[in-house]
Amino acid sequence: MFDLVITGGTVATASDTFRADIGITDGRIAALGHELQGRDRIDASGRLVLPGGIEAHCHIAQESATGGMTSDDYTSGSISAAFGGNACFVPFAAQHRGMGVTETLDLYDSRATGASVIDYGYHLIVADPTEKVLTEELPAAFARGVTSFKVFMTYDLMRIDDRQFLDILTVARTHGALTMVHAENSGMISWMSDRLVAGGHTAPRYHAPSHPALAEAEAINRAISLARLVDAPLFIVHVSTPEGAGLVSDARMAGAKVFGETCTQYLFLTRDDLDRPGMEGAKFMCSPPLRDRGTQEALWRHLQAGTFSIFSSDHAPYRFDETGKLSKGPDATFKQIANGMPGIGARLPMLFSEGVAKGRITLQQFVALSATNAARLYGLRDKGSIAIGMDADIAIWDPEARHVISVETQHDNMDYSPFEGWEVTGRPVCVLSRGTRVIEDGRLLAAPGHGRYVARDRTDLTGHPGHLAPELDPATNFGARIAP
Amino acid sequence: MFDLVITGGTVATASDTFRADIGITDGRIAALGHELQGRDRIDASGRLVLPGGIEAHCHIAQESATGGMTSDDYTSGSISAAFGGNACFVPFAAQHRGMGVTETLDLYDSRATGASVIDYGYHLIVADPTEKVLTEELPAAFARGVTSFKVFMTYDLMRIDDRQFLDILTVARTHGALTMVHAENSGMISWMSDRLVAGGHTAPRYHAPSHPALAEAEAINRAISLARLVDAPLFIVHVSTPEGAGLVSDARMAGAKVFGETCTQYLFLTRDDLDRPGMEGAKFMCSPPLRDRGTQEALWRHLQAGTFSIFSSDHAPYRFDETGKLSKGPDATFKQIANGMPGIGARLPMLFSEGVAKGRITLQQFVALSATNAARLYGLRDKGSIAIGMDADIAIWDPEARHVISVETQHDNMDYSPFEGWEVTGRPVCVLSRGTRVIEDGRLLAAPGHGRYVARDRTDLTGHPGHLAPELDPATNFGARIAP
Amino acid sequence: MFDLVITGGTVATASDTFRADIGITDGRIAALGHELQGRDRIDASGRLVLPGGIEAHCHIAQESATGGMTSDDYTSGSISAAFGGNACFVPFAAQHRGMGVTETLDLYDSRATGASVIDYGYHLIVADPTEKVLTEELPAAFARGVTSFKVFMTYDLMRIDDRQFLDILTVARTHGALTMVHAENSGMISWMSDRLVAGGHTAPRYHAPSHPALAEAEAINRAISLARLVDAPLFIVHVSTPEGAGLVSDARMAGAKVFGETCTQYLFLTRDDLDRPGMEGAKFMCSPPLRDRGTQEALWRHLQAGTFSIFSSDHAPYRFDETGKLSKGPDATFKQIANGMPGIGARLPMLFSEGVAKGRITLQQFVALSATNAARLYGLRDKGSIAIGMDADIAIWDPEARHVISVETQHDNMDYSPFEGWEVTGRPVCVLSRGTRVIEDGRLLAAPGHGRYVARDRTDLTGHPGHLAPELDPATNFGARIAP
Amino acid sequence: MFDLVITGGTVATASDTFRADIGITDGRIAALGHELQGRDRIDASGRLVLPGGIEAHCHIAQESATGGMTSDDYTSGSISAAFGGNACFVPFAAQHRGMGVTETLDLYDSRATGASVIDYGYHLIVADPTEKVLTEELPAAFARGVTSFKVFMTYDLMRIDDRQFLDILTVARTHGALTMVHAENSGMISWMSDRLVAGGHTAPRYHAPSHPALAEAEAINRAISLARLVDAPLFIVHVSTPEGAGLVSDARMAGAKVFGETCTQYLFLTRDDLDRPGMEGAKFMCSPPLRDRGTQEALWRHLQAGTFSIFSSDHAPYRFDETGKLSKGPDATFKQIANGMPGIGARLPMLFSEGVAKGRITLQQFVALSATNAARLYGLRDKGSIAIGMDADIAIWDPEARHVISVETQHDNMDYSPFEGWEVTGRPVCVLSRGTRVIEDGRLLAAPGHGRYVARDRTDLTGHPGHLAPELDPATNFGARIAP
Repeated sequence: MFDLVITGGTVATASDTFRADIGITDGRIAALGHELQGRDRIDASGRLVLPGGIEAHCHIAQESATGGMTSDDYTSGSISAAFGGNACFVPFAAQHRGMGVTETLDLYDSRATGASVIDYGYHLIVADPTEKVLTEELPAAFARGVTSFKVFMTYDLMRIDDRQFLDILTVARTHGALTMVHAENSGMISWMSDRLVAGGHTAPRYHAPSHPALAEAEAINRAISLARLVDAPLFIVHVSTPEGAGLVSDARMAGAKVFGETCTQYLFLTRDDLDRPGMEGAKFMCSPPLRDRGTQEALWRHLQAGTFSIFSSDHAPYRFDETGKLSKGPDATFKQIANGMPGIGARLPMLFSEGVAKGRITLQQFVALSATNAARLYGLRDKGSIAIGMDADIAIWDPEARHVISVETQHDNMDYSPFEGWEVTGRPVCVLSRGTRVIEDGRLLAAPGHGRYVARDRTDLTGHPGHLAPELDPATNFGARIAP
Repeated sequence: MFDLVITGGTVATASDTFRADIGITDGRIAALGHELQGRDRIDASGRLVLPGGIEAHCHIAQESATGGMTSDDYTSGSISAAFGGNACFVPFAAQHRGMGVTETLDLYDSRATGASVIDYGYHLIVADPTEKVLTEELPAAFARGVTSFKVFMTYDLMRIDDRQFLDILTVARTHGALTMVHAENSGMISWMSDRLVAGGHTAPRYHAPSHPALAEAEAINRAISLARLVDAPLFIVHVSTPEGAGLVSDARMAGAKVFGETCTQYLFLTRDDLDRPGMEGAKFMCSPPLRDRGTQEALWRHLQAGTFSIFSSDHAPYRFDETGKLSKGPDATFKQIANGMPGIGARLPMLFSEGVAKGRITLQQFVALSATNAARLYGLRDKGSIAIGMDADIAIWDPEARHVISVETQHDNMDYSPFEGWEVTGRPVCVLSRGTRVIEDGRLLAAPGHGRYVARDRTDLTGHPGHLAPELDPATNFGARIAP
Repeated sequence: MFDLVITGGTVATASDTFRADIGITDGRIAALGHELQGRDRIDASGRLVLPGGIEAHCHIAQESATGGMTSDDYTSGSISAAFGGNACFVPFAAQHRGMGVTETLDLYDSRATGASVIDYGYHLIVADPTEKVLTEELPAAFARGVTSFKVFMTYDLMRIDDRQFLDILTVARTHGALTMVHAENSGMISWMSDRLVAGGHTAPRYHAPSHPALAEAEAINRAISLARLVDAPLFIVHVSTPEGAGLVSDARMAGAKVFGETCTQYLFLTRDDLDRPGMEGAKFMCSPPLRDRGTQEALWRHLQAGTFSIFSSDHAPYRFDETGKLSKGPDATFKQIANGMPGIGARLPMLFSEGVAKGRITLQQFVALSATNAARLYGLRDKGSIAIGMDADIAIWDPEARHVISVETQHDNMDYSPFEGWEVTGRPVCVLSRGTRVIEDGRLLAAPGHGRYVARDRTDLTGHPGHLAPELDPATNFGARIAP
Repeated sequence: MFDLVITGGTVATASDTFRADIGITDGRIAALGHELQGRDRIDASGRLVLPGGIEAHCHIAQESATGGMTSDDYTSGSISAAFGGNACFVPFAAQHRGMGVTETLDLYDSRATGASVIDYGYHLIVADPTEKVLTEELPAAFARGVTSFKVFMTYDLMRIDDRQFLDILTVARTHGALTMVHAENSGMISWMSDRLVAGGHTAPRYHAPSHPALAEAEAINRAISLARLVDAPLFIVHVSTPEGAGLVSDARMAGAKVFGETCTQYLFLTRDDLDRPGMEGAKFMCSPPLRDRGTQEALWRHLQAGTFSIFSSDHAPYRFDETGKLSKGPDATFKQIANGMPGIGARLPMLFSEGVAKGRITLQQFVALSATNAARLYGLRDKGSIAIGMDADIAIWDPEARHVISVETQHDNMDYSPFEGWEVTGRPVCVLSRGTRVIEDGRLLAAPGHGRYVARDRTDLTGHPGHLAPELDPATNFGARIAP
């Protein structure tokens, strides 16, 4: 007698699809089989039963570079994520210059504790890698379960130089942490931006040329070179160009432990969206910027071919008002408008509909891109798959349900959706977090505080197609992924 | 109460490793969980419980091009495979010119029926694609479950030309069959061989220069070009060069459905082995030939990075006597010596020991390369993974056991092993076929005839990292992989 | 006192542009300097004085594959070439199966002797490489000054297989001859053509899809692979795709002696021209076929970057009537229409106008592409440049003159021009052949028979950017290019 | 009656080799022909008559980064250059931070005026691109004939950041100047160096790992990316890796105006030379550092294939004593030892002997690499070739003479030669500067002060294989290279 059984569904993992009931006890998956009995039951007949999505790139309760604050806190953000099929998310904890890392993590703990409806962790943004940070605070962060460190190669307030990058890669490698990087060339962007603004080209549309594709490709190449120098794993976030994707793929073929992701907006929007009248284009400003149709197609091919390990939203919710995008007023230049757009709830329905339902990717790829690979790379050892002993973080999808993406149908705290009006096929109808229903049939069933902080493990490249693990000892290979 | 339970083991699939008991009923996996009860029980404590290996490239009961016969028939071949951790194999049924396809399949059925201890299918070698073959017999072969067609670009008795290749690719694509290709340039090989022999260079060592790396790279490029022209899936067997591997990887990045394998010998032997005194080098003759150390390293990187979907033995057992290698006598030229070497039993222990135990690949990659991907690509829909409803084809490994590869420890019908003396860590201690013990603790427990012919499905690219499936309808995506 | 002086002009070679008079005696360039005195004088003030063009790819007095004959013989062809700025041309002498090579050359000698107004040689097309051809007749051809051998990888009546290709490459390499290749995959073309015709797609427009870009790239890759196997120089004629151009460039970077050309039509026309109503499209049929705008741009880049050594016309003049294009009547399928289009007179004005005058290439590149490189690669040791001792083959251009390319302004024996109506800047106003005026101010001044057969030297890679000459001894390097 | 005639020699330019006398008047080439008469005569029978070499990368009378001064001033440097076959050189004028550009050029003028025996110019090193430098002083430098600006991506005292690089590229592009770059990643080098020194790895041999190949490839990629962003021409100095060379070649194929050079030491020495006992290795320290044999071979291939436009010495003469290499004493760490080695006199004999005499490159390539391309890229409009109107800067070589490179046979002010003991074939026996003998038969015939400062033109890509000149107007194409 299990606590809960999910019956009659079609279960999918990153490697298999099969019909089975799932027995859940104490928040974990205890059995897979037929005719399981439980005290509670969810009928999943005609449904797909997938690992709960993991949103691994989102900005929650974080200050923007232009002064505002994301509109979503851990409550609204987690609710919106759950309605989008996610059972876990990993926002950023952003160190600012002059702040300590421990201070930073404490601050974000204060923002997250008791607020989330799904489990969460933080990626640490390292903007000030002092000697103390490198030798004391990063190891301490790792010890408290923050096992991924993100750096910026651009943005004056955040960016580190190549030498600092090497320091961080080396510390990360020593501990088994994964270094993430926002890779764009700072000099190119500031030089172009200044020229554009000086020339009176201040409208949102000029955001795109101010962040040329060359700036991304250059920085990705540099980041990979640095990682290869010290043989450290590296994760390239939000790859937006075929050139960048090619560099990720080539590096892996050459034996480097380099991984990457792309995001919803780069597959479905283009820079033409920045061209909308007035300030409307500001809604579509993100960095790297939207590109063109040819880029979309090339990124789809890379998604299909395995270049990208993760598909993320880069949810960065700045409202289209004075609290967000327009904090500098209606006459702001593109430099003064917060970068980013919402999408935490749209990510998985968009990928399912345009990817799985249209036959571009398989259900196995969907699971890997939406959950399994993020769990492995970011050390969420008990999440990301459906297997005995794993957390019962499960999303049940109706593969036939159609609905329309709209600010009205999203549950974040935003006043617009960049995907407004997009009709999609496939919808998460129930999300379980450790066996507890978070959402079901459109209703929120879990309370803020249900979600717990997850102390993450070292990056686990096990089972990741295309990884290299020469430094892992066999014991780790056999044992690390074994749920208790 | 299951028929059989495997208890206490660490189960691994291509995506997960977890501790679970496995309940088996009616030859299928019925449950995964804890404390399962069965009428029979295997204690797998401290053991790895993996999908039974699938040997997808081996020559059994097949005539050689130089006149002899493989030393292994379906009985000895299947027994040796089972001792090597395999629960299924797919040898070739070779059409010769003038033979019909149905006639060919009937002939191999007569050789296999009642003989094998594990399940089997055939890849059909198409050497004479007449109009009748293309329009009637290939569809008929597909209908009887032979869903992969192999062609040769070299060997005078077998090779087809580019136009015939396009015909076969098109028929295969129409039915969902997978075309396999031995890709070497025929003209280069015969031209070089004739020059070498004319110059008195007839020793086994000259086999290597007679099959230059350029001949493989050229033919792989041509084969991929032909497949891309008609948008047909293609599988490149026994890739032996970095150039060839790079072409497979590049093609997939460019959106082609091109897959490949490499084989044991290319990772562990070199052409120096051909240089042994007298005719000893003949033992190491295979096509494509052994290369060098640099090639080994590059192939390992491609194996790690996901270029290769399958790792095979290309078991082609010709004894080192007048029935095999030396059928033309001790003074034969390298052209007169049968190509191929045994390895059906060594494949998985070698890959486990040098790959998993040494940390070069993960357990997940081992499972994918040894079983799951072959099952998907070759349409073995109920095999290749451990999931509810799948055939209980299971290999239980002792990851710590050490033994030595030797003609003495192999169970094939050969008089030498090319891997003689290699000490390996990790050994299959029990193999189940549909829930029945085939081998256990070094003893053969199943009788010839236990193994059944498996009618295979269309090639199923579902879940294959890096596949493209634009032509599959969503129903197929959701449904095809679902075990009943 | 020279026989003739050209005064006041701006002289250009492949490396320099300078103001100088040219003194000519006994048909050779005897002096460069100022205030030279001669018995005759041409005032070239305001003019460019360039090496006479060498048309290295043209079909003259040659039977077509579909039965007709080129409309141009050595008289009309040479006159048209001269009006287009050429002082030398090298048409093909085409062996057909069953013919001997000596017989072939004798036949073409009978067609050319006494007919041409400019000097000429032949490239030998080898379609039947019998033992006798390989061992006796090719050496004999080389001895009589035919030092380039062309092979076809497609066309049933001409094509050789890979083994024969290796034989010819080897013979050519031994003698210092250059092997040229028409590189398209025969199987792809015939397979596609048959499918198109079977489907009723017989109009000229279907010529393009019947010769896919993949067919060219595949064959170029194969040809390069064969040449690399035997380390023989290779020249790829009429490269029409970026993929093909990239292969040529990559091969050279990898150390192979591989060269190539592109042709006028691939830079200025597209397959849309094949789409003209009725049979009009037939005028634009050539092989490889016209491609698209993106291809044009990519080929320009390769022309600029040095990938192509020569720029040719591939003049293949089949009239738009029953003697040529329409020999099978107005209902012919695209398979029955002779391939090729005229352009011997338009090549240099088009390249000058669109290349030099528009700043895409420099005058030095123009000279190299139009004359110098052809002279070196094809062993025309006394031609292709303006230097002391060279033949006084000189073209004087008015760089400002504008005129319109039209069937009316061409001097070939054709009834259409594919470049009809194209307005160009720059025009050859005088062409000298060994110091004799051939054309001047629009008038023909030389008589048929002025032009002599030129026995050519071995291929001379000296001075060719990007060549490799490991097998040349220093004496050759120092001496071979020295005019007496 | 010319001032001087050179009779009986074999003249070579970048495109031709021919027998001719050369008539020289007023320091310029006035005639090419036979039986020319002059008031003075040099018999060049059996000799090669080549354009005088142009040494385009050398450090003369320049402070080192570690405090010393080059041992060569404009007198000894120019004499050594002349004995090595050069008739012109272009050392650096190095701006230091806080210095103005005009001040810098004035300083170098004071060092060079009256001192050199051959003509000279300066490349300006820009280390402090202030607003004044960018808007006033660089244009002023260009106006006084300094038309190439070099920047460093490494070395703390010199390096500029990416934004400054873009500024300089843009100013250079506006004026037609060529930007040169020392491309190595600063962060990688300083990070590695600090780690090595901290670990006690201070011997000269550690110079090599402190400048990894990745550091060069990364920086070249970045530099090319920056140049492509603003479509500016770029010259990569001293490329030392195949990866770097490949980037140069690829960029040009992609349409960028990117050029490069390699240097003597990278073809003939390896990092094993750094491994000599004691401080001996210090003699072989240069940046980028020496690599390995495989690199040498790959760089040769790129030299042959046209990747490199120029072959330079990077002569940086720091004596092996306290004035140079050992200024920090015999216990200095590799960080404290001046980088660079001499070679201004050895460059051309080494390239001739190992390149031309051994058949690796042709005489035309030798001329292009040693003189013509440097003249074009660096705007030395009257130098670099043998053509009417050009400066009579001529080097007469005995192609058979053998001698040994040694500190004894060099004429620089050094106490060692890195090529000590190398026996070479081919030697410059006479060098003319504007028609005046500088050296002849081993004797110095010109006095300091003969050499004049040359105000250089804008970079002239005319005639450069693989250049692109879309922005040049036709007038420039026709006229710029025409000597008066």
